[in-house]
Amino acid sequence: MEPSLDVVGVGNSIVDVIAMVDEDFVKQHQLAKGSMTLISQERATALYAKMPPALEISGGSAANTVAGVASFGGTAAYLGKVRNDQLGEVYVHDLRTAGVGFDVPPAAQGPPTGRSLIQVTPDAERTMNTFLGMSMHLAPADIDADLVASAAITYCEGYLWDIALAKAAIRYAMQVAADAGRMVSLTLSDAYCVDRHRHEWLELISDKVDLLFANETEICALFETEDFDAAVQQGSAITKILALTRSAHGSVVVSGADRVEVPAVPVAQLVDATGAGDLYAAGFLFGLANGADLRRCAQLGSIAAAEIISHVGARPQTRLSSLLDRTAAKSIG
Amino acid sequence: MEPSLDVVGVGNSIVDVIAMVDEDFVKQHQLAKGSMTLISQERATALYAKMPPALEISGGSAANTVAGVASFGGTAAYLGKVRNDQLGEVYVHDLRTAGVGFDVPPAAQGPPTGRSLIQVTPDAERTMNTFLGMSMHLAPADIDADLVASAAITYCEGYLWDIALAKAAIRYAMQVAADAGRMVSLTLSDAYCVDRHRHEWLELISDKVDLLFANETEICALFETEDFDAAVQQGSAITKILALTRSAHGSVVVSGADRVEVPAVPVAQLVDATGAGDLYAAGFLFGLANGADLRRCAQLGSIAAAEIISHVGARPQTRLSSLLDRTAAKSIG
Repeated sequence: MEPSLDVVGVGNSIVDVIAMVDEDFVKQHQLAKGSMTLISQERATALYAKMPPALEISGGSAANTVAGVASFGGTAAYLGKVRNDQLGEVYVHDLRTAGVGFDVPPAAQGPPTGRSLIQVTPDAERTMNTFLGMSMHLAPADIDADLVASAAITYCEGYLWDIALAKAAIRYAMQVAADAGRMVSLTLSDAYCVDRHRHEWLELISDKVDLLFANETEICALFETEDFDAAVQQGSAITKILALTRSAHGSVVVSGADRVEVPAVPVAQLVDATGAGDLYAAGFLFGLANGADLRRCAQLGSIAAAEIISHVGARPQTRLSSLLDRTAAKSIG
Repeated sequence: MEPSLDVVGVGNSIVDVIAMVDEDFVKQHQLAKGSMTLISQERATALYAKMPPALEISGGSAANTVAGVASFGGTAAYLGKVRNDQLGEVYVHDLRTAGVGFDVPPAAQGPPTGRSLIQVTPDAERTMNTFLGMSMHLAPADIDADLVASAAITYCEGYLWDIALAKAAIRYAMQVAADAGRMVSLTLSDAYCVDRHRHEWLELISDKVDLLFANETEICALFETEDFDAAVQQGSAITKILALTRSAHGSVVVSGADRVEVPAVPVAQLVDATGAGDLYAAGFLFGLANGADLRRCAQLGSIAAAEIISHVGARPQTRLSSLLDRTAAKSIG
């Protein structure tokens, strides 16, 4: 049966709490610059009290990606968990009104909706300290098998792997997708995350993943090498399509003997790197689900990433479909 | 006794929920473009469900103003009411970390923290639909008389006048300030708000207000005239200082026989007009509390307004003190 959905995302449901800080703030609070660090609710409260005035905007890696797919005009749904609190309401609103199907019911009890305290430094780098909250309770029972089976691509974020229950949910989603003959995609999410799960992930990628996203640091971490080309070679040996982002240097996509390099789309002003990888994946997945070739997929990724880094927050502020020239857009489908 | 604080603000405590919409959205939902409309919790829920993905950022007119005063390096405190919910936590955090004293305890029961659903159209105009929530419960008992008596200027927002209890709180704060020999300031807030309270306000301004802020539409509404000069004349007859903003045309300040006109500070890109009046007041009040002359006060207002309209949200994203050249900054104090 033809898929009725382009992409279903599985991820942590996180409201981003974003503040502009100076480099001293990151040093003073001993934050792991550029990375995602998991923190307890107590630590979140303490760190928040030190952060300057902030703004709140829905985030979560895979959720940002499916919001991006919808913004391109693709069809997308999301599986993740929030509490029935104010941040949860905001979260559900922001995904649904972005055009993403999101029907996992908010939990009536348990920890609050997760949030990530994001410090953006003047170099536009983002440092994330995440209290997962209700996200941790995403369970296999929350995975709608019919929904997963209806999507051309099931896209899972590596961040989920930190939690045993969520890990089981991903494994289940991947199995359902594979059984339905659909494509399975994973993003490595974060180099520290890779360090925590290297061996399990190498096995998972070999066995289950058709399309792997990573940035330079993450793929090198996976293979414990500093040699990017070596990492590319090893990576492409264990998955059908490997899509690697290199910040300002664009991306490299390898599939079997094919290798494509696509430049980044230049931005007038780099404001906040949050979501760059998520939106690259959005463009890529939208293209792939709609029959584009790998070069075009990577170009769509670059277009979406450029939009997201030119403003604060990891959800598109411009309809991504409006950034495509008409001829090119037609050639996708 | 010398005041130990520059400004204390009294206002509605509102989290802004901001979305970019097209003109059609405003028409379709019959919103009063450019104005503030009070809505019920039910209407807020229904309208929110129709709004595109949004971002949340602390707002509230007088709170924006005192955050601006603090950002200039002035000393400021705030009196307003939130619930002990997630939006309330965000609200308290954003004011305190902006350097504003805010010690009214969040309520443990009652309606949730107030929010304003703000639609920003491509012309950068903002249309506000506000569910006041816990804001409505600001009571005379919440007014810390010692705090008010310690401030050079007590600044009240006209929006509060819609609620009988809050009105009593303002009246009390104004009385305390007057008794302590301090200055009392009011902003008219909104032309519809003026229509609702014209007669009471004319009396209040004559009796109690030393410094009145308004924009062109509001001052004309107060005197039921379309002739701005006539409104200026009538306004200056009933208050010591009248500070009137005219959007791109800058501001006019009248005090007795003195009349000062100050141009607006040009902005590279007008993004979101939310908070323009609030931040003009911030600059003006900071200047006045620190001994600046009226022209300089108005210039400081223009500087702060220009910063706020060049980005989304009504709280400064740049330290306003950094926008002052050093010689000028010195001349303030």
